[in-house]
Amino acid sequence: MTPHPRRRRRGEDRREQIIDEALKAFADNGYHNTSVAEIAERCGLSQPGLMHYFPTKAALLSAVLDYRDRLDYDRFAFDQPLHGKEALLRLATLVDHNMHVPGLVRAFTVLTGEAVTADHPAHEWALRRYRTLERYLTESLRAGMADGSIRSGIDPASVARQVFAMMDGLQLQWLVDPDNVDMAALFRAYIDELLTYLS
Amino acid sequence: MTPHPRRRRRGEDRREQIIDEALKAFADNGYHNTSVAEIAERCGLSQPGLMHYFPTKAALLSAVLDYRDRLDYDRFAFDQPLHGKEALLRLATLVDHNMHVPGLVRAFTVLTGEAVTADHPAHEWALRRYRTLERYLTESLRAGMADGSIRSGIDPASVARQVFAMMDGLQLQWLVDPDNVDMAALFRAYIDELLTYLS
Repeated sequence: MTPHPRRRRRGEDRREQIIDEALKAFADNGYHNTSVAEIAERCGLSQPGLMHYFPTKAALLSAVLDYRDRLDYDRFAFDQPLHGKEALLRLATLVDHNMHVPGLVRAFTVLTGEAVTADHPAHEWALRRYRTLERYLTESLRAGMADGSIRSGIDPASVARQVFAMMDGLQLQWLVDPDNVDMAALFRAYIDELLTYLS
Repeated sequence: MTPHPRRRRRGEDRREQIIDEALKAFADNGYHNTSVAEIAERCGLSQPGLMHYFPTKAALLSAVLDYRDRLDYDRFAFDQPLHGKEALLRLATLVDHNMHVPGLVRAFTVLTGEAVTADHPAHEWALRRYRTLERYLTESLRAGMADGSIRSGIDPASVARQVFAMMDGLQLQWLVDPDNVDMAALFRAYIDELLTYLS
């Protein structure tokens, strides 16, 4: 039996609303300091009402992180590795875009910061995410080396790690001091120099 | 009247012990999710006993952050700006050293992550810290430009921001995935390339 269309629609809207409010709460206070009761209240739901959709706080966190990743992956087609230089320019475009969604970036930064403790429920996500990003960019750089657009003699995995480190580090500075730090310009300058170095 | 030497000594030891336990607690759980009662218990003190030394949790946080900064500043003489290239090499040595103190680095990372929310009690500290570091390295690079060891035509403030972004970003990856990420080697490779670019 398929669910009643209107009810399914309402259920999906509700899930999206919960993820949206959870994201805002995590952005403001982090994961540990946010209660399920608080998120339920923001949604106009009882706590058991919310737990019908997400049985635990950790399940809700996973949904929030997956949602964030899906947004990025859709927007930047991470599933189809671009060739070396294109991939780097695409990342610069992602950073431009991030300057327009500070709430999302803040939630991600607070959660990644918390996730460095091994028993945090987002630790596995952070580990998987870094490994996925590294693999994606390493493959892109290797493709560029294969077609000669990127010179040989570089270590693509190291470059990949450095690129994502620069992204994360500039995000931190921008969030702490948004009036003084132009994250997009600083990242683009870094990528431009890197492209020269890789040529 | 000067305080009794033994009592003063004991008071200082106690302060150090409290800062040390607070640092460990913040490293494990972040600031928001750590209670003063918990830190007092780790120290074998009552809560009012601890609050005799640090009247609020925010005061304790400030003491922890100041302690961390003092360690770094003492070790790396940040008060006497080094000339451009020397300063960059000194930072690479700092990152080498950080690989031996994961607890300290973890506490700092979790707290900086939390501090991106504007009303967090560590926000002012994070803001001041980034501005101080940027000024320190900018001056060092300018000194190098003045004596000709660093080429003209670069923007020293941008380079300074990028260097600290790389440090922070690599720290995150190393803490999340310590077996796969050699933060010190990655940072040193970045500094080596930067030195070539700056020459």
